[in-house]
Amino acid sequence: MKELIERPIGVFDSGIGGLTVVRELRRQLPGEDIIYLGDSARVPYGNKSEETIRKFGLEDADFLMKLGVKVIVVACNTVSSVALNFLKEVIKDVPIFGVVEPGVRVAMQKSKSKRVGVIGTIATIKSGAHKSLFAEDFEVIGRACPLFVPLAEEGITSGPIAREVAELYLADLRNKVDTVILGCTHYPILKGIVREVLGAGITLIDPAEEVTKEVFDFLLQRDLLNSKGGDLDIYLTDVPPHYVELITRFLGERVNNIMKADLEKFCKEE
Amino acid sequence: MKELIERPIGVFDSGIGGLTVVRELRRQLPGEDIIYLGDSARVPYGNKSEETIRKFGLEDADFLMKLGVKVIVVACNTVSSVALNFLKEVIKDVPIFGVVEPGVRVAMQKSKSKRVGVIGTIATIKSGAHKSLFAEDFEVIGRACPLFVPLAEEGITSGPIAREVAELYLADLRNKVDTVILGCTHYPILKGIVREVLGAGITLIDPAEEVTKEVFDFLLQRDLLNSKGGDLDIYLTDVPPHYVELITRFLGERVNNIMKADLEKFCKEE
Repeated sequence: MKELIERPIGVFDSGIGGLTVVRELRRQLPGEDIIYLGDSARVPYGNKSEETIRKFGLEDADFLMKLGVKVIVVACNTVSSVALNFLKEVIKDVPIFGVVEPGVRVAMQKSKSKRVGVIGTIATIKSGAHKSLFAEDFEVIGRACPLFVPLAEEGITSGPIAREVAELYLADLRNKVDTVILGCTHYPILKGIVREVLGAGITLIDPAEEVTKEVFDFLLQRDLLNSKGGDLDIYLTDVPPHYVELITRFLGERVNNIMKADLEKFCKEE
Repeated sequence: MKELIERPIGVFDSGIGGLTVVRELRRQLPGEDIIYLGDSARVPYGNKSEETIRKFGLEDADFLMKLGVKVIVVACNTVSSVALNFLKEVIKDVPIFGVVEPGVRVAMQKSKSKRVGVIGTIATIKSGAHKSLFAEDFEVIGRACPLFVPLAEEGITSGPIAREVAELYLADLRNKVDTVILGCTHYPILKGIVREVLGAGITLIDPAEEVTKEVFDFLLQRDLLNSKGGDLDIYLTDVPPHYVELITRFLGERVNNIMKADLEKFCKEE
C-alpha cells in the first residue's frame, strides 16, 4: 500500500457531471492523483428514492475505498444532499467531503439581499439539505429543475428550448433572489441561459471551486498534499459511445484511458 | 408450481412506460395474471451501451422467470431493439415477445406511401432493429428523441416546450412519411404533440396493441389462455414518492400494491 500522502483523491458522481469538480481539483491541486467514478449505468440519481440514493452512494464510496483513496469527494449534489450524513456514519476510515455545505457557505458570503435560490434535482430540493445549513436570517427558495440534466447531456444549452425550460423553472426566482446555487454538477454548463433568464446581476455559485479549497486546506493541515502525482483515472459503470465527447466537455481536457467499473461484481468478490 | 395455463404473463421495461403494454394486455386478456417489473432504479436504458442494455435485460427476464411466468413480454423498445435475439438465445424455457417486430408489421400494413418514420431512444435508433425488419421497398427514417422520455415523465406533453422539442426532432419527417412508429413506451403520452407537428394525416403506431394480439394468439394456439386470473403485481427496483401518480397515468387504473424488487440480491441468492 502507498504512503497516505501519495494516495489518490477519490471523486464520485452519478454520471459524468462530477468531472467539473475534477477539473477544478486538477487546477488547484495539480500534484494529486485522482480517481473518478461515474455511475453512468444507473444515472440519473436525482429522481430516485432516498433509500436507493443511499445504497448507490455507499456502493460508489466503497469502490473508491477499495482503490485506496485518502479522501472521498462526493461531487454528486443528490448524494451530498440525501446521504452524506449516512455515508459519514458508515465510513469512518476515510474523510468525506460533500458539495452542499461549501455551496451554502459561499452563497452566504456573496448574497447581499440574504435571499438565495437553490436549483437542483427533485431529490436534492426535496431533502431541504441546503436550506437547513443557511443562517436563520436568510430566505432560501428551492426549485427542482429535472429537465436541466437531459438538456445538458443533449448539449442543448442555448436557443428556444433551453430558454423555455429555464423560464419554466426560474421565472418565479427572478427579482426575488440575488444569488443562486447551481446545486447539480450538470448545471454549470447551463450558466449562460440561467443568467439570461435571471438577469445579468445574478450571482451564480458553483460549489466545485469551494469544495476543492476545502480539500486543499484539509490536506495541507495534515501534511498530506501530494506534489508528485497528477494522474487521472476515470472509471464509469457504463461507457456509451457518445460519452467521450461529453467527458471532454465536462472535464475540459481529452482523456483516453476510461475504464469500466462493475460495482456489483466488485461487491460480490469481497 | 402452478399449472402452466395458470401462470402469470411477465412484462418488463426499464421504467414504468411499459405499463402502457400492461394496460392493453389487461384490456384484451382480462383473465390473465400479470407480473410487471420496472427497473426504475436504473432507468433510462436508452442512452446506455449495448453491453449494459443486454446485461440489464437478462437480469430483468431472470427475475420474472424465477417468479414462474409462462411468457415474457419485453415492453422496452430499447431492450427489444438491442438485446431480443440475445435473450432468446440465452433463455430457452420461456417464450419471449418484443415490441419491435409487431410495430413494424402494423406500419407495413398501414403505410400507403411506403415511407415510414421510427422514433425512439438513441440505442433503439442506432441499433437499426426496426429498419432491418421492413420489406425492401419501404423507405424508413429513424429519429432519436432523447428528450421525449424526461418530458413525458415531467408531464410536459403540450405547450411551448413540448412543441419546440417535437419540432426539433420531427421537423424533417414532416411530409416525408405517412406513418410513424412510436418506438418507446413513453411516447404514446406525447401522441398529441407529435400529431400537431407531423400533421393530422399522420398514422401513429403504438406497438402495445399488436404485441398483445401476438401473445393472445400464441396462448390460444397452445391452449394456455387463462380466464380465471386477473391479478396484477407490480415490482419496481426503485419506488420514488412521485411514482404513484405517474403509474396511474401510464396504466390507466389505480394500484396500491407496488412491491420493491432487488435484482442484485435476487441474483446473489441463487
